Amino acid sequence: MKAGMIGLGAMGTPMARNLAKAGVLTAVYNRTEEKAHRLAQELAVCCAPSPEVLAQSVDVVFLCVSKDAVVLALVDAICPVLKAGSIVVDMSTVGCETAQRAAVLLAEQGVGFLDAPVSGGVEGAKNGTLSIMVGGEEKHLEHVKPLLAAMGDKIIHMGPVGAGQATKAVNQVMAAGINQAVTAALALGQAQGLPMAQVFDVVSGGAAGNWFLAHRGKTMLQGVYEPGFKLALHHKDLEICQAMAKAQGLSIDFLDQTLADYQRLMTEGYGDEDISALYRLKRPD
Amino acid sequence: MKAGMIGLGAMGTPMARNLAKAGVLTAVYNRTEEKAHRLAQELAVCCAPSPEVLAQSVDVVFLCVSKDAVVLALVDAICPVLKAGSIVVDMSTVGCETAQRAAVLLAEQGVGFLDAPVSGGVEGAKNGTLSIMVGGEEKHLEHVKPLLAAMGDKIIHMGPVGAGQATKAVNQVMAAGINQAVTAALALGQAQGLPMAQVFDVVSGGAAGNWFLAHRGKTMLQGVYEPGFKLALHHKDLEICQAMAKAQGLSIDFLDQTLADYQRLMTEGYGDEDISALYRLKRPD
Repeated sequence: MKAGMIGLGAMGTPMARNLAKAGVLTAVYNRTEEKAHRLAQELAVCCAPSPEVLAQSVDVVFLCVSKDAVVLALVDAICPVLKAGSIVVDMSTVGCETAQRAAVLLAEQGVGFLDAPVSGGVEGAKNGTLSIMVGGEEKHLEHVKPLLAAMGDKIIHMGPVGAGQATKAVNQVMAAGINQAVTAALALGQAQGLPMAQVFDVVSGGAAGNWFLAHRGKTMLQGVYEPGFKLALHHKDLEICQAMAKAQGLSIDFLDQTLADYQRLMTEGYGDEDISALYRLKRPD
Repeated sequence: MKAGMIGLGAMGTPMARNLAKAGVLTAVYNRTEEKAHRLAQELAVCCAPSPEVLAQSVDVVFLCVSKDAVVLALVDAICPVLKAGSIVVDMSTVGCETAQRAAVLLAEQGVGFLDAPVSGGVEGAKNGTLSIMVGGEEKHLEHVKPLLAAMGDKIIHMGPVGAGQATKAVNQVMAAGINQAVTAALALGQAQGLPMAQVFDVVSGGAAGNWFLAHRGKTMLQGVYEPGFKLALHHKDLEICQAMAKAQGLSIDFLDQTLADYQRLMTEGYGDEDISALYRLKRPD
């Protein structure tokens, strides 16, 4: 089985490396050609000059980009040249409808589609320990499972096409709420002049303990906000989540608040910082 | 050193048992006398007919009640009869000012005071594994540390009188935000018809992972809301936190929201359920 990776960003690059390590990667493509060229040299794989050329040469196309429109444009482009029986796996975080539209388009050509967004951050992508939330047909998942196993250690079938994206939305909404919870609570401690190392210690160990506090609390309190997970990307994901919530008739106050807070931080030039940069708006002066 | 415990609720009772196990408990008092009587028989200690009688017979008085006014009334009552050099340790969750007022009153009689609220829930109280956040003078803490060690495995000195309560507020605010985050996100998953056992599995393992999801997520999804931590008590704590935040000029939206949500649940008769009963208001119909 030959695989190609389209989209060589912070996540796509280490994921491509793990596919190469597993011996299945034969081609890469990236909009910024230089990145693709360098990685192709490093991994001794083909640097495709276009998505179409990549698609002609492989059985499985992985997408790892950042926008719904880009996913759909790529699927439009590669659809006519893909062999029947090949599979497109979209690992981007996009909307359920995008996944469903892509699946319908590809099915007309006899091509399978899975939405397979991931969580576990850049560290997980590097170490091959991502959690992969898969929507689509069981038979397609079985077909590409050995390839997914090169990138993640938890591969969970969530249901039909779109169910992977729906699950990712649950994860991203929870992460937003926890960001609000942790930054507001630490700000209350700091405003009261508490010794924050001790606060961190005692709160982490109790019923309010959480991954985000454990992994970002200390740096946040030092005013260090290196990604991690870029704030502008979480903002993009949360816009998708907000649309999903609205479609279900759900209104989530902290989600609206987080979108507004992130927007303000992006306007102030902090979009490339970690999401813990939310503390910039919460900490006492 | 002889110790007495005033307030034998869900937390005070197992804490008294651990003090008895350590061989330092000599008396208990509870407003509802029957509870005190039963526990005194079980532990073979004195059942004091009043807080004053208890206070006369011990060197250290522990308070574990649920309201600021009750703490101050108790301190007023026992203050005249306490020996100089004895210490009052308030393990209730109340405001910083209550701690400070109690400390001033007691200091006039040469009696020490520590605020020492706890986290770790009923399980922690039973197992003697509470986290204890202590405000007050170092010398008083050193004096009672062996007694605290019978009830908790993490005893952290946070600063002067009131600093224990200030730290507890950080913990309770974070817990409120996490409750909102987890219930809203799971509701979004359920509204989309996702298989929730798989959602629980994949989200717990990632960057949105947290204690509350791990310990209350499954029961919440089953519609089971047994305490745990009673919603009405968290509501009471959050009112204190809200006052603290306002005093610092901080406004925390999810805190106001949680107070309103809890108030509604209490009005509907759910105040004695676990705080995860917030899911009653968030889950799709």
